[in-house]
Amino acid sequence: MIDTPVAYSAAEGIATIRLNRPDKLNAVNAGMITALIAAIDRAEADDAVGAIIVAGNGKHFCAGADMSSGDRTFDYESLGGQPGASPIQPDGTIDYGNPAVRDGAGLLTLRLYRCLKPVIGAIHGAAVGVGVTMTLAMDVRIATEDARFGFVFTRRGIVPEGASTWFLPRIVGLPTALDWCLSGRVFQAQEALERGLVRSLHHPDDLIGAATAFARELVDNTSPVSVALTRQMLWRMAGSDHPMEAHRLDSRGVYARGRTDDAREGVASFLEKRAPRFPGRVSRDMPDFFPWWKERDYD
Amino acid sequence: MIDTPVAYSAAEGIATIRLNRPDKLNAVNAGMITALIAAIDRAEADDAVGAIIVAGNGKHFCAGADMSSGDRTFDYESLGGQPGASPIQPDGTIDYGNPAVRDGAGLLTLRLYRCLKPVIGAIHGAAVGVGVTMTLAMDVRIATEDARFGFVFTRRGIVPEGASTWFLPRIVGLPTALDWCLSGRVFQAQEALERGLVRSLHHPDDLIGAATAFARELVDNTSPVSVALTRQMLWRMAGSDHPMEAHRLDSRGVYARGRTDDAREGVASFLEKRAPRFPGRVSRDMPDFFPWWKERDYD
Amino acid sequence: MIDTPVAYSAAEGIATIRLNRPDKLNAVNAGMITALIAAIDRAEADDAVGAIIVAGNGKHFCAGADMSSGDRTFDYESLGGQPGASPIQPDGTIDYGNPAVRDGAGLLTLRLYRCLKPVIGAIHGAAVGVGVTMTLAMDVRIATEDARFGFVFTRRGIVPEGASTWFLPRIVGLPTALDWCLSGRVFQAQEALERGLVRSLHHPDDLIGAATAFARELVDNTSPVSVALTRQMLWRMAGSDHPMEAHRLDSRGVYARGRTDDAREGVASFLEKRAPRFPGRVSRDMPDFFPWWKERDYD
Repeated sequence: MIDTPVAYSAAEGIATIRLNRPDKLNAVNAGMITALIAAIDRAEADDAVGAIIVAGNGKHFCAGADMSSGDRTFDYESLGGQPGASPIQPDGTIDYGNPAVRDGAGLLTLRLYRCLKPVIGAIHGAAVGVGVTMTLAMDVRIATEDARFGFVFTRRGIVPEGASTWFLPRIVGLPTALDWCLSGRVFQAQEALERGLVRSLHHPDDLIGAATAFARELVDNTSPVSVALTRQMLWRMAGSDHPMEAHRLDSRGVYARGRTDDAREGVASFLEKRAPRFPGRVSRDMPDFFPWWKERDYD
Repeated sequence: MIDTPVAYSAAEGIATIRLNRPDKLNAVNAGMITALIAAIDRAEADDAVGAIIVAGNGKHFCAGADMSSGDRTFDYESLGGQPGASPIQPDGTIDYGNPAVRDGAGLLTLRLYRCLKPVIGAIHGAAVGVGVTMTLAMDVRIATEDARFGFVFTRRGIVPEGASTWFLPRIVGLPTALDWCLSGRVFQAQEALERGLVRSLHHPDDLIGAATAFARELVDNTSPVSVALTRQMLWRMAGSDHPMEAHRLDSRGVYARGRTDDAREGVASFLEKRAPRFPGRVSRDMPDFFPWWKERDYD
Repeated sequence: MIDTPVAYSAAEGIATIRLNRPDKLNAVNAGMITALIAAIDRAEADDAVGAIIVAGNGKHFCAGADMSSGDRTFDYESLGGQPGASPIQPDGTIDYGNPAVRDGAGLLTLRLYRCLKPVIGAIHGAAVGVGVTMTLAMDVRIATEDARFGFVFTRRGIVPEGASTWFLPRIVGLPTALDWCLSGRVFQAQEALERGLVRSLHHPDDLIGAATAFARELVDNTSPVSVALTRQMLWRMAGSDHPMEAHRLDSRGVYARGRTDDAREGVASFLEKRAPRFPGRVSRDMPDFFPWWKERDYD
């Protein structure tokens, strides 16, 4: 697996996806975007996986876009298309002369947004450009004490990508999102913690352990189908204009889920003060009103 | 009043609504939902009431759904309907076989969302499940130092209710909402304070006093009609896509309110450095553009 | 310039706009709104300006609406119209009998919302009523340690203006917005810092220096066109319902910007470890998909 841009492993209910171009500081190219999306697909499809950890091999989580093309790095027309755009054009063709060509980072964050499993980002070293925007659609981010971050796009003459202008204000609030994205400055782990970008800081030796502990508690105590529904409800209601939309969803959700063996096990295990063993599986037991949304196309 | 699920009292401009099944840890059943909505109706209709405090009798604010049905607790079809669903079906009938049956917690939070008086939640002991989601449509939450909270739905095999997936990200931000709702873990008062779920912590003996002091300052210094309008503007604009929607509202609001005796009293009392005595009443003096929204139905 | 309500200056890439009625505590009247909007227009149109600082002359940033009309302060019908409403009626006429007359504070905040340059509010002394709501559409607010703030509208018998019910929850979260706007109480700089209304506190002698340092770092290191696009993306996506809307924008944005000399300079200066010199100018180099929105009218 040495030459693949992403390394995948799964054990004890937790999938670990590692950015795997350590000699390039895990710089993102088209192959890495494709491989990351494929790894999310794989973890989502596997009922044995209850949570996903995304981490980086080598000294850094991800230094951003691969700059081996030098000052043509972002000149996608001359380079033949944006990273990751090719696999997922709506009509199956690739038209790099079309200004509607899609941003690869956004293909990845939108895939994470739709994911049915919780995703934990474990960040060490540099997480800059797409290295940080790719983490915004994850549910939890933790980092090492020496991590550093930067939404550096205005300093490179481009604009924030990965749909980060939608995600970031919902994670850290609008003032911090403006501060980081307008200035483009690199900032330290402590600031990321204080502003709420990351949940906790750890010694580098403890980072994966902390991510695993968070995943472990979730996997051992919760219903996978309930988690999948809850994840989609929260991400989608964060953009909804009225609580009635949530009421429509959760009325159906509680009703449909309340009749299942999962709900009986949830109450029984609580009353019996023991760990639950939920029988429901994401691959076969999502309620019939799922998905409740019409997928939104890119035009 | 010993056998009623909710105790209501009002004095000096402040209504106090108490969950009143202390021997059941104030566990929520259909009767409690109905009684809470009726109590909100009563406080809203009374011009002598300027603010509402919601608290719990006994050792806990609310331990969640009544689990006396054991592992069938959430099996509404076999039990004959969700708590609180029966009173408010759109067509007046009850069809418990209909998967569109409405979540009782959401009926309560949507009623609070529409309320014209400010609502203060005073939480002690456990506030778990519907015990915490019911507080999310309140304007302020304070708690005792030994309070504990839990959005435990994924651990019971169901999903978050009470439209909480809409409310919670707007109160504590999306990362904290994801953390609490995906993991389902119970957390302590200090974490609730740090993440912004509650505004302050108090010794149990001081909780109601602190809630009353907050209500008191508001009732003694503000115009009830201005407060009613401001409350609806903030809650509804929190879900709006563009500041022009607020500009439409507040242009009309300042214009209509600026001509009233309330506005003259507001300026005069400020210039004269004395407490105001606002003559306007919610029952008769809301401006003619109120309500500005079309009520959204559940289908 | 002594008698003008706003003083304008520009040097070294930074425009400074100062409220300039110090003998009136910079109280806002129609002339001040008009002059502030004109000053924003001027700074935006000048390619030599990369950032805008808004500050106040005299002892206070802004004490709010001019109350020289006494208890008729907000009675716009008898006074002949709201401050600032007259210049910008959609059809060019002024109809003060029309309840749709527009709030002057909102005309200003909506102008700031549309601005293509970053805006830094530097607040000292009192910032009350329109004195604080006007700052909510700025990108950064800093203040002196002795500053004080108040959304005092419910204490004056009116309602919050300046589209503040849209802006404020997105800046400090819904619970704090409710607390401040329902109670109408005046609060100190430390609370403004803790709740996220201001980014940092400073000694009065250091306030302008701190604002200038923030502006300086931004102006010296970023592409003006990238900053203009990023500012609009963040403000507008803060109200958007789905990350796909951001993906539509940033796909076009990265593609269009990536081909420019700005992007080449951004990468080259980074690789060469030197300060960038971006050639793109806001007046002529915005991409052809800008603006991507249809301006929203007031009816």
